[in-house]
Amino acid sequence: MSLLVAVTWQTQPWVERFKRLLPDRDIVVLEQDFDRSAIRYVATWGPKPGSLSGLPNLEAIFSLGAGVDHLMGYPDLPDVPIVRVAQDDLTHRMSEYMVLHCLMHLRDQRRFDEDQKAKRWNPDRAPPIAGDVRVGIMGFGVLGQDSARKLKMMGFDVAGWSRTPKDVEGFQVYAGEEGLTPFLNRTDILIALMPLTPETQGMLNRSLFEKLAHDGRLGGPILINAGRGKLQVEADILACLDDGTLQAATLDVFETEPLPEDSPLWTHPRVTVTPHNSATSEPDATARYIAQQIRRHEAGEAFEAVVDKTRGY
Amino acid sequence: MSLLVAVTWQTQPWVERFKRLLPDRDIVVLEQDFDRSAIRYVATWGPKPGSLSGLPNLEAIFSLGAGVDHLMGYPDLPDVPIVRVAQDDLTHRMSEYMVLHCLMHLRDQRRFDEDQKAKRWNPDRAPPIAGDVRVGIMGFGVLGQDSARKLKMMGFDVAGWSRTPKDVEGFQVYAGEEGLTPFLNRTDILIALMPLTPETQGMLNRSLFEKLAHDGRLGGPILINAGRGKLQVEADILACLDDGTLQAATLDVFETEPLPEDSPLWTHPRVTVTPHNSATSEPDATARYIAQQIRRHEAGEAFEAVVDKTRGY
Repeated sequence: MSLLVAVTWQTQPWVERFKRLLPDRDIVVLEQDFDRSAIRYVATWGPKPGSLSGLPNLEAIFSLGAGVDHLMGYPDLPDVPIVRVAQDDLTHRMSEYMVLHCLMHLRDQRRFDEDQKAKRWNPDRAPPIAGDVRVGIMGFGVLGQDSARKLKMMGFDVAGWSRTPKDVEGFQVYAGEEGLTPFLNRTDILIALMPLTPETQGMLNRSLFEKLAHDGRLGGPILINAGRGKLQVEADILACLDDGTLQAATLDVFETEPLPEDSPLWTHPRVTVTPHNSATSEPDATARYIAQQIRRHEAGEAFEAVVDKTRGY
Repeated sequence: MSLLVAVTWQTQPWVERFKRLLPDRDIVVLEQDFDRSAIRYVATWGPKPGSLSGLPNLEAIFSLGAGVDHLMGYPDLPDVPIVRVAQDDLTHRMSEYMVLHCLMHLRDQRRFDEDQKAKRWNPDRAPPIAGDVRVGIMGFGVLGQDSARKLKMMGFDVAGWSRTPKDVEGFQVYAGEEGLTPFLNRTDILIALMPLTPETQGMLNRSLFEKLAHDGRLGGPILINAGRGKLQVEADILACLDDGTLQAATLDVFETEPLPEDSPLWTHPRVTVTPHNSATSEPDATARYIAQQIRRHEAGEAFEAVVDKTRGY
């Protein structure tokens, strides 16, 4: 009854966490010799190709982060449930990020930063209040809905967009292809939190940005992407910032990560770059969550957040 | 039945707003000749000494901003109710400011700004989540309580301090002299929103900063002052930032405003300066509020927010 830890970095701290939380199990790593037929669970992030094959008694794979796109393209993915980490901690961190960055745009904090640098006292700009600004959240799952509730509580006018129709109390949720244009048309700040799938790849491009509201109070539409970098077309973001199709962007994720040093995003005056840590899962909490899911499963209960492989998330 | 507009700037826009909202009244200004016995109301900000005397039929004075300290030191202040502007708009703006700046400190956004400037990709810092950080709000009136509710909803551990005991559902409110030290001892981020009175002047000084929590998750206590500049001793703030008594400060108000160009606060790497506009009242909303208070009063109802002159706020 073993748990295989298959990660490409920080292997030993993960092993130690799981040994502490599951003292009655063998915790093994790819780099050592182990009995492949004893493996019942895998905890993984970005496993090397081939490393998850030949595990005849495998019962589940746990993703050590929020997304599972790193597994979806994986060759010979074993046919067992893939369990997503859905911990409150990660959800709360993501909402903190979204509220922080929406408020920075709302209150024009970057302009005040520039004023401070220039020792310029300029109180006369009166930014709109949150109620004047429409936020649209693409990807209206656990993360999107928690951000939505908190942004609404701050006063923003919030709506969601989801691939499939959804009833979420207190919010208008636009759905599918035909809901997309009306959703974009009423959106001043677009938050991207959708999963990366073949359908969403490259979706944040010029043709989408052009549909965003251009009659809003922020001087133009704003993009915040903390989903996945491959949702966005960075050449389009830069061109749209320069021709006024976009007013500003806050990006936590990028087509290539780490963001290459020669990317113009680093230095664009209306781009805020953060290093893909809007909602890093706290490793101890992640390990606790996985141990708890294993206990649930062995007690005959269902896993809490199983990936739908046909949707890809 | 006249309203006297006594302000030192932007007189004409105020006159026009009140003429629109109170078309059946005479709206007069200090600079013109008018019948002093006809004046029943004054709307003012920073009136010149003497300008409010000799108004025998005055019924109320309306302050055109949130604070009334500009009136409390006023010589020969007429003995009529002073009505504070307590509009939702101003309250919401202040809460936006507090949530924004608490989140900036929580998530170490200044460090990420520096990283971006240096094109440094450094995702490994894991800031605490809001639940790990204790916010303390000094001045637990309308503004303080709205900020408290929103910060709590974001996950922060929030308490208040008030001069006199107060029951506010969902919050521990420390009170008076004997509540101050325990309140400070549990506070990582101190928000100052108390009114400026002889008792509170200079209260934000070294001896107070030394009592703040030094065992918190932010590397040291943080001050956010959006109350009044004269609450703070800026020499102490600078010295405390440099010797580690304070970790950082966000200041919207200053001993002298505009902040003089030679103030070291402008360039201190751990100070954020904003130009006293955390919660500027939107003039149209302020004028609407005052017109509404006049109608309430004339319908025999009480004014909503009358200043207690013995307390000074």
